Amino acid sequence: MIIQLSQHAGANQISSIKTFFQQKGVEFFFQDFNNQFIVPSFNDEAALKQFDIIKSVIDIKTPYQLSSKNYKTKTTFNVNGVEIGGEDLNLIAGPCSVETEEQIFSVAAFLNSQGIKFIRGGAFKPRTSPYNFRGLGNDGLKLIRQAANKYNLRVVTELMDLSNLDEVYNHTDIIQIGARNMSNFSLLAELGKTRKPIMLKRGMSAKATEWLLAADYLLCGGNENVILCERGIRSFDMQSRNVFDLGVIPLMQSLSHLPVFADPSHGVGKAAFVNKMGLAAIAAGADGLMIEVHPNPEKALSDGEQALTFNEFSDFIAASKPLLNAINKGADFVNNNKILKLESF
Amino acid sequence: MIIQLSQHAGANQISSIKTFFQQKGVEFFFQDFNNQFIVPSFNDEAALKQFDIIKSVIDIKTPYQLSSKNYKTKTTFNVNGVEIGGEDLNLIAGPCSVETEEQIFSVAAFLNSQGIKFIRGGAFKPRTSPYNFRGLGNDGLKLIRQAANKYNLRVVTELMDLSNLDEVYNHTDIIQIGARNMSNFSLLAELGKTRKPIMLKRGMSAKATEWLLAADYLLCGGNENVILCERGIRSFDMQSRNVFDLGVIPLMQSLSHLPVFADPSHGVGKAAFVNKMGLAAIAAGADGLMIEVHPNPEKALSDGEQALTFNEFSDFIAASKPLLNAINKGADFVNNNKILKLESF
Amino acid sequence: MIIQLSQHAGANQISSIKTFFQQKGVEFFFQDFNNQFIVPSFNDEAALKQFDIIKSVIDIKTPYQLSSKNYKTKTTFNVNGVEIGGEDLNLIAGPCSVETEEQIFSVAAFLNSQGIKFIRGGAFKPRTSPYNFRGLGNDGLKLIRQAANKYNLRVVTELMDLSNLDEVYNHTDIIQIGARNMSNFSLLAELGKTRKPIMLKRGMSAKATEWLLAADYLLCGGNENVILCERGIRSFDMQSRNVFDLGVIPLMQSLSHLPVFADPSHGVGKAAFVNKMGLAAIAAGADGLMIEVHPNPEKALSDGEQALTFNEFSDFIAASKPLLNAINKGADFVNNNKILKLESF
Amino acid sequence: MIIQLSQHAGANQISSIKTFFQQKGVEFFFQDFNNQFIVPSFNDEAALKQFDIIKSVIDIKTPYQLSSKNYKTKTTFNVNGVEIGGEDLNLIAGPCSVETEEQIFSVAAFLNSQGIKFIRGGAFKPRTSPYNFRGLGNDGLKLIRQAANKYNLRVVTELMDLSNLDEVYNHTDIIQIGARNMSNFSLLAELGKTRKPIMLKRGMSAKATEWLLAADYLLCGGNENVILCERGIRSFDMQSRNVFDLGVIPLMQSLSHLPVFADPSHGVGKAAFVNKMGLAAIAAGADGLMIEVHPNPEKALSDGEQALTFNEFSDFIAASKPLLNAINKGADFVNNNKILKLESF
Repeated sequence: MIIQLSQHAGANQISSIKTFFQQKGVEFFFQDFNNQFIVPSFNDEAALKQFDIIKSVIDIKTPYQLSSKNYKTKTTFNVNGVEIGGEDLNLIAGPCSVETEEQIFSVAAFLNSQGIKFIRGGAFKPRTSPYNFRGLGNDGLKLIRQAANKYNLRVVTELMDLSNLDEVYNHTDIIQIGARNMSNFSLLAELGKTRKPIMLKRGMSAKATEWLLAADYLLCGGNENVILCERGIRSFDMQSRNVFDLGVIPLMQSLSHLPVFADPSHGVGKAAFVNKMGLAAIAAGADGLMIEVHPNPEKALSDGEQALTFNEFSDFIAASKPLLNAINKGADFVNNNKILKLESF
Repeated sequence: MIIQLSQHAGANQISSIKTFFQQKGVEFFFQDFNNQFIVPSFNDEAALKQFDIIKSVIDIKTPYQLSSKNYKTKTTFNVNGVEIGGEDLNLIAGPCSVETEEQIFSVAAFLNSQGIKFIRGGAFKPRTSPYNFRGLGNDGLKLIRQAANKYNLRVVTELMDLSNLDEVYNHTDIIQIGARNMSNFSLLAELGKTRKPIMLKRGMSAKATEWLLAADYLLCGGNENVILCERGIRSFDMQSRNVFDLGVIPLMQSLSHLPVFADPSHGVGKAAFVNKMGLAAIAAGADGLMIEVHPNPEKALSDGEQALTFNEFSDFIAASKPLLNAINKGADFVNNNKILKLESF
Repeated sequence: MIIQLSQHAGANQISSIKTFFQQKGVEFFFQDFNNQFIVPSFNDEAALKQFDIIKSVIDIKTPYQLSSKNYKTKTTFNVNGVEIGGEDLNLIAGPCSVETEEQIFSVAAFLNSQGIKFIRGGAFKPRTSPYNFRGLGNDGLKLIRQAANKYNLRVVTELMDLSNLDEVYNHTDIIQIGARNMSNFSLLAELGKTRKPIMLKRGMSAKATEWLLAADYLLCGGNENVILCERGIRSFDMQSRNVFDLGVIPLMQSLSHLPVFADPSHGVGKAAFVNKMGLAAIAAGADGLMIEVHPNPEKALSDGEQALTFNEFSDFIAASKPLLNAINKGADFVNNNKILKLESF
Repeated sequence: MIIQLSQHAGANQISSIKTFFQQKGVEFFFQDFNNQFIVPSFNDEAALKQFDIIKSVIDIKTPYQLSSKNYKTKTTFNVNGVEIGGEDLNLIAGPCSVETEEQIFSVAAFLNSQGIKFIRGGAFKPRTSPYNFRGLGNDGLKLIRQAANKYNLRVVTELMDLSNLDEVYNHTDIIQIGARNMSNFSLLAELGKTRKPIMLKRGMSAKATEWLLAADYLLCGGNENVILCERGIRSFDMQSRNVFDLGVIPLMQSLSHLPVFADPSHGVGKAAFVNKMGLAAIAAGADGLMIEVHPNPEKALSDGEQALTFNEFSDFIAASKPLLNAINKGADFVNNNKILKLESF
């Protein structure tokens, strides 16, 4: 239940509501910037009648509250001139990791030539093995920012822990939280205090409810610029890196107001299947896609087997356009007149 | 390894090859109607040079052999005038169960009005609970056959066990083997001896290799008319009935020559998501779809929550056409000039 | 809900109850031999007051009914002088497959020397690949029966399909239904009509409720001699053949009155871990165990990697005795005075 | 491959080996404190002959290296006078969360009365919902430390993120890394630099190899005091909170030298099953257990449904002793003469 207070609610009145819940032993969360109480386990609306500063009550019957479609119809927001979660498909592309200046600038130039508005690239890489390449760190951040600035792109990059928050915050337009960090609640709570757009990837075996509760960690801090991104779940068959769960796209869109993206590169883990699964994700209604592209996948320092070559990516763009037409959807890489000039960094 | 013999191979010569493998303790399978040995665990081609009746040797490196793409490029076959696995999408639709004469005839009439060529409907239902409706049995078979004949449709229905083989064989055009029977090897071996087209659904947690080995049970008996059908795998999240694994479509098409269908109704289990997931399956490259339609899903005796109404199904057909155009694919329900007259039963 | 009728209930009175449910559109199942109705989806006890031939009503709140602990406290039964599901642990041992007369007789002699009362051995093998050894068939059945008779053992063997029912029925004391057949409802329904003890293995990804509903297929036909057997569930990690779910033992014992056995050989799939996991299953409260033993596991025609040698099996027996003492449990292989003479076949 | 250098290896010589690998494009990790290279993807021992400062080469064929049993036979270490991973079973017990002074002191007094040497209790709780009790924070840490000091116990508590490292480090004897943080590689890398004992819980769907690679993150930093702890994996059946994977205990002990603990409380999630599953874990060969105990589980602020009462815990201790005797294993809560005096804090 979300209990919204009148603007005129004073400290004493708020305090009396807190006391009311404490005496009942009910857990609550008060958002002062929104002047509202979040009380998931409470549903006795009648008992609240005594508090006349209550403006409205939204009965949300799920454990997640702020990410629920009962709270809000649709979330859209603007990332440096591009609308996220709106009528147009968003497309983020780029290499798994930033490897060299030459690599990231060549990708950026290529993406710009395709009309792409967002570049991805990891500087801090969560690698299963400590002996593998863990990214270029701050040098990587600077390189992707420079390449993006030169080619009019927005940057999406992963934050692995709070010790890098400032650097990542300063160099990126959307912060990616990877599957392994979906349940890193300390990290989410901290990002909830910022207003930086966050792409929250689904954990490797996260249920819909768990994923939305993770989103609530961001939302309850006041950060409403949240994207959900499906990236494949744990498979029992080693012939697939993951099971790409496209059914979760309409499911999440029915439960939540947040934009739902899909990452077919991690979803299937094999470049030869990425194009078809990218089209499938569009047909399933994804609000956006994230696709790995590399100038030379065979020499990639990470995840090369799932990265598209430039040619394969161009083929995908070409194939996606008639499909988007067929479902009456635009795309940020097509509909240029909606794109404003990138602000300078 | 598949070892193909010359047409002139005599019994003695075949026998000497059998002895060769027996002495080595190697398991083999001899298809007399194809004049070939299947020897999965053998790969010493040189040792075979001594047998001059060997025409050719195909080294297939997987446990499954006859369903492998190394054995054959593509399987297509004709079901009463409609090509399966060809350039056009196939679409099978109908209720979960045959319930009444009125129900199945109304569905058949409706499907015919939409150009549909295949009707589904269960007469013998594998129900998790013994206390639930288990289908009309032989009466159901007769009803769906009559309705199909009247409306120029082909019948797809499930066979649950060998005791009903004759009845099902006689009333159907494609026999469906359900997920729970994918590993019912006795049933598969028996169907392998027929030439009736078989739609083999994926088991609830079957790996690609296991699924293709199940297909090999059919193929090694000589029945080459086999369709694979993805129908969702076991989920860890009860908000989804199943996880609809669309990534398995390009995977299976890369491993095997068999047509790969998808069943979004079971795949997601919720009517509201079936249309989008049906489109997604087409975009993922499915050779065919199977979709549940019911005149009144709320009153269905089984699986009503996943059945489309007639209007919802018409919406799907309307949405699928531009999508098919976008990916340059025809459909059996569109391209009528490819459809021959239905043979009489 | 299970509705038990008085012995004096006449056909008319039974018929009026049937009519009552039909008019309400409620699915029911009538067991004439038990004079009771099973009506899972009905719970309006008051509405039944009108029928005075109703002796008692048991409100079972789960989809499964006859296997519920609310219906019956505990199931025990006697297999040729050995009590199943009683105070003593039962132990079934033997090879995966019957391979030769020498093999099965040597196993039988060995088991007898260890005090074992039950021998297992497959004659019809459900093999994932059609090209692998599928068992000796009826010859295998005869061999294991002869070996068992000579060494005072009871036979447990798998039935794969109804076409072999008579042979298997005649040669075995307990019929095993394998994991792949747990949802072969036609097979279960047919076995429900017999009174032969059935060991029902858990399906590869079966939930507790599904497993108990499968048991209900047997029980509702009147066969009350049912054992449940955990054998490992599908794993996402290929370093384990399966995940051996020992937590399901106390779970099933809390939900059902049926004896719960465990098969550590399939559960972990690696001989080196079978002894410890067998002990763990005993500590978890299993009513019985099933363990694979082979005179020469390296040369076994199936599943050799999980079979114990004779020495390893003796070690297990030796290790199990103090553990059984520690938990105050006897065992059929220890407590010989409880064992009656084997009836002749 | 682990390449150990002679003590006399100078900077130039080490540098030339680094150059060798860089030129080959092979990823390597150099531990200066151990004077050894870790080079997982390299196995050309002959090529190393040119470097005469190489003392020995250990060919470890798995992706994980330092946690492999090929590197080391067995890890034991001392936590304030109690040996971990030795001949005796270790037992950690206590509430899910530190809630009040009264609660944690009453638990500590009780545990001491049972001979227990380790108390657990969360001060920073990783809660799936942001609206639930997240622990007392630093106040909780102080309370559990005081209670432990008074009752001669060692403290095990969870670290959720680096921002709390100092406080947790200072108040605990073993730092627990929860399932959700098993792949929080930044956190692991930082803890690898300390020498504080770490209990690394298995991720919710982590494979054996992934778990050992996570351990390698700790080990490669030089922290050799690592415990692995199984706590249940994601289940497809909501009747179990998790699947308690006891088969992973002998598996991990065969692959690694690290002690393997088990947490039956999270493993099965239901107090009624914890005792039997605790015994099963001992029988499976666990080096230690972690069990939740609460003075009043019904009023617990988190995870009450899986916590034992004091009486239930005493029953477990009583039941464990004959079982430990049966498998010839001691326990830290029995064998007091091996326990040294607790150092003062």
